[in-house]
Amino acid sequence: MMHRLPSYLMTMPSKGSLLDIEHLEDRQIVDLLKLARRMDPRKARRPLLRNKRIILLFYEASTRTRTSFEVAAQSLGAITTLVQSSGSSIEKGESLLDTAYTLRAVGADAIVVRHPAAGAPHLMARHIDIPVINAGDGMHEHPSQALLDAFTILKHKKSLKGLRIAIIGDVYHSRVTRSNCHLLSRFEAKITLCGPPELVPDVATTLVPGLAITRHIEEAVRGADVVMLLRVQQERLAGKKIQLQDYVARYQMTAARLKMARRDAIVMHPGPIIRGLELTSEVVDCPQSAIVDEVRNGVPMRMAILARAFGKN
Amino acid sequence: MMHRLPSYLMTMPSKGSLLDIEHLEDRQIVDLLKLARRMDPRKARRPLLRNKRIILLFYEASTRTRTSFEVAAQSLGAITTLVQSSGSSIEKGESLLDTAYTLRAVGADAIVVRHPAAGAPHLMARHIDIPVINAGDGMHEHPSQALLDAFTILKHKKSLKGLRIAIIGDVYHSRVTRSNCHLLSRFEAKITLCGPPELVPDVATTLVPGLAITRHIEEAVRGADVVMLLRVQQERLAGKKIQLQDYVARYQMTAARLKMARRDAIVMHPGPIIRGLELTSEVVDCPQSAIVDEVRNGVPMRMAILARAFGKN
Amino acid sequence: MMHRLPSYLMTMPSKGSLLDIEHLEDRQIVDLLKLARRMDPRKARRPLLRNKRIILLFYEASTRTRTSFEVAAQSLGAITTLVQSSGSSIEKGESLLDTAYTLRAVGADAIVVRHPAAGAPHLMARHIDIPVINAGDGMHEHPSQALLDAFTILKHKKSLKGLRIAIIGDVYHSRVTRSNCHLLSRFEAKITLCGPPELVPDVATTLVPGLAITRHIEEAVRGADVVMLLRVQQERLAGKKIQLQDYVARYQMTAARLKMARRDAIVMHPGPIIRGLELTSEVVDCPQSAIVDEVRNGVPMRMAILARAFGKN
Repeated sequence: MMHRLPSYLMTMPSKGSLLDIEHLEDRQIVDLLKLARRMDPRKARRPLLRNKRIILLFYEASTRTRTSFEVAAQSLGAITTLVQSSGSSIEKGESLLDTAYTLRAVGADAIVVRHPAAGAPHLMARHIDIPVINAGDGMHEHPSQALLDAFTILKHKKSLKGLRIAIIGDVYHSRVTRSNCHLLSRFEAKITLCGPPELVPDVATTLVPGLAITRHIEEAVRGADVVMLLRVQQERLAGKKIQLQDYVARYQMTAARLKMARRDAIVMHPGPIIRGLELTSEVVDCPQSAIVDEVRNGVPMRMAILARAFGKN
Repeated sequence: MMHRLPSYLMTMPSKGSLLDIEHLEDRQIVDLLKLARRMDPRKARRPLLRNKRIILLFYEASTRTRTSFEVAAQSLGAITTLVQSSGSSIEKGESLLDTAYTLRAVGADAIVVRHPAAGAPHLMARHIDIPVINAGDGMHEHPSQALLDAFTILKHKKSLKGLRIAIIGDVYHSRVTRSNCHLLSRFEAKITLCGPPELVPDVATTLVPGLAITRHIEEAVRGADVVMLLRVQQERLAGKKIQLQDYVARYQMTAARLKMARRDAIVMHPGPIIRGLELTSEVVDCPQSAIVDEVRNGVPMRMAILARAFGKN
Repeated sequence: MMHRLPSYLMTMPSKGSLLDIEHLEDRQIVDLLKLARRMDPRKARRPLLRNKRIILLFYEASTRTRTSFEVAAQSLGAITTLVQSSGSSIEKGESLLDTAYTLRAVGADAIVVRHPAAGAPHLMARHIDIPVINAGDGMHEHPSQALLDAFTILKHKKSLKGLRIAIIGDVYHSRVTRSNCHLLSRFEAKITLCGPPELVPDVATTLVPGLAITRHIEEAVRGADVVMLLRVQQERLAGKKIQLQDYVARYQMTAARLKMARRDAIVMHPGPIIRGLELTSEVVDCPQSAIVDEVRNGVPMRMAILARAFGKN
């Protein structure tokens, strides 16, 4: 949550890249959201990116983000190639940049990259002349997720301005939350982070101006327009003061707790969810749940990101 | 071999699904076999499924079934996406149903699934509104294999009725055998299961009416029209009374033993084969061997299954 | 380095196969290099191989070779299917040949194979009736790499004849070097192998006539037209007399050492490189470095190999 990138990584990324939310201008975010609204994955393959090759370079496991980018790219007529860390030169100790040069030379017109190190996409984008799309970098950012979350919220709410948003769970490890805080606070949403100190340290408020923290889920949820939940990985609670059963007792989103939010509040989760841990099955499947919508909206949002990468906006 | 699914799993699967042989009607089987005869993977991509996206969700290793479905789908003009348990959210503990919802939301028009748990495809098919194709579920069924086996037999024999079929090997763990017994007994073939009690328990006869069991391979093979062999995994013999060398001595299909079958008998095996274990190399490569034919026939058979899934029959 | 295949493996491979450099005729090499010059991966997909299915069968990790063949095949309009040893029947102990028969029956029109055993592609090519392309077999050969290396050299030099070529590093384990020695010596380049005895044994000179060996990098580099470096895997130095720091001190290619070569010398490396081990970063990124060019040239070269496999030359 705390991680900030050294400034030299921010100089002159390759044009069309999407590296993080923090350094996007408001205008760019608005344009991307508008562009996504015009994208329709069901329209017989739009040839916008015909003959473009998009390489999906995943150093970490992914189902939804990878397939979402894959479907988005193919819906625009692009060709995709998947390179995963297992079964590749990555295993042989090749450096990230040399992998990037190689993929560029092989014919990549853009690279979508997920990497366990914060700033990895930024480093790539400074050194190669094709767009680099960040599909999640360490504990830093996950910009396409924040954009699809905003896109999803705006399908239910007129504007982000003044919305009360509760973000509950493992904020500390969440690159999604970092990106969401940057985006939502920019458009004047009011964000409350909620969880035990082990997962939501006090310093989290320094990320963007105006962040509130509470240790009481009732306080976070009361009057909220949007309830965002985060996966809590059991292995991350190991050795911490808080135990799994404590977490569930104090922070699990239940139907009863959800009732404290506004009647038209929506429930979000970047997935993968664990039913019975950070939320109950009842909440996952309730009418207010927008969890599956987020996945669905990911495709047009990523189509927009890719179209913009090639200047097709 | 013994595994039966609870009945609630059978209610209202999504239309077009192929979940097992047991619950297909005779008519449906006949129609699928007829449809397969009209399918030609070599014809410049039939656009029957143009712009349909078929996700191949494999929780277990597979070469032939996966590539066969992939080729079948692409031959019909569909787009395929592969999701394997390694390198995906599956590793993160997401539930099967939530993975299904996710893949649906990402844009799947059908899901082909292989899963180690019996009934997994049935569960998915009850909860999502797109066709689900069972590519093997635990020790339960492998319906596309049984269909391609019937398709293969019918290329050599006029009818299934009255055919004498010997099934030799690890019947207990074989989902292929379950599906084959359902299909072949339905059309009045006479099936004899053969192997040691550890691999062919007496209770196996309860699967469908009319199954015979023998412990003597000569008895199974004598006069057979079709000799089906099954892979015997060495690790499954560990701790059992029967040793590998005993198995080979008593149950390996050799050229000499094959001579006891009818002169026009065919030899089948769902693969992967282990030469020198359940059968000799001489048998694999003999003129009566239909083992490679089965693989070849898998493609038009799966084209038919997919075409039917989308009502294109 | 020393490995030679038994002669029976060389009889009658399937037409169009590319198994090694050693058994190609001069004419065939020249034709392939010429054909590659006419190939352009950027031209809207050439339909030369439309509806052909090329299966990439990789028993070893690969990024560049796999994606290069994939891009090459797709650029010619072919459909590709990837089969990796993890997540496939290969894990279940199926033999190489049975895997080949299976892939053929599933619909492969050609197979590109990488395998840890020398001669694996030759064995396949003797038994199936479709082209087999060797993408690296054990310590034996890597013919497409040698072809793209020659293609790269000829972009900088008028002819191979009389060129002085230094090959420095782990020659012993390098299938690339074997293939390069066969190709380059055929066209009368003068090759010097360089490294410690543990990595460049004296017997290496028996590979082709006219090979020289030196233990002194200065001697290898002085006056060279081409400096080819090889990856040195740290684990392969374990238990050998030479230590990593010794290797670096004596054999690392540095800018200073490179100055001893001809002013227009080029630096090559089949990748993946390890900066700071077999070469310095300065050398990787210097104007004389053709390392990224090799990757780039791999695509048209492999387009030529595939086009030839189908008689489209």
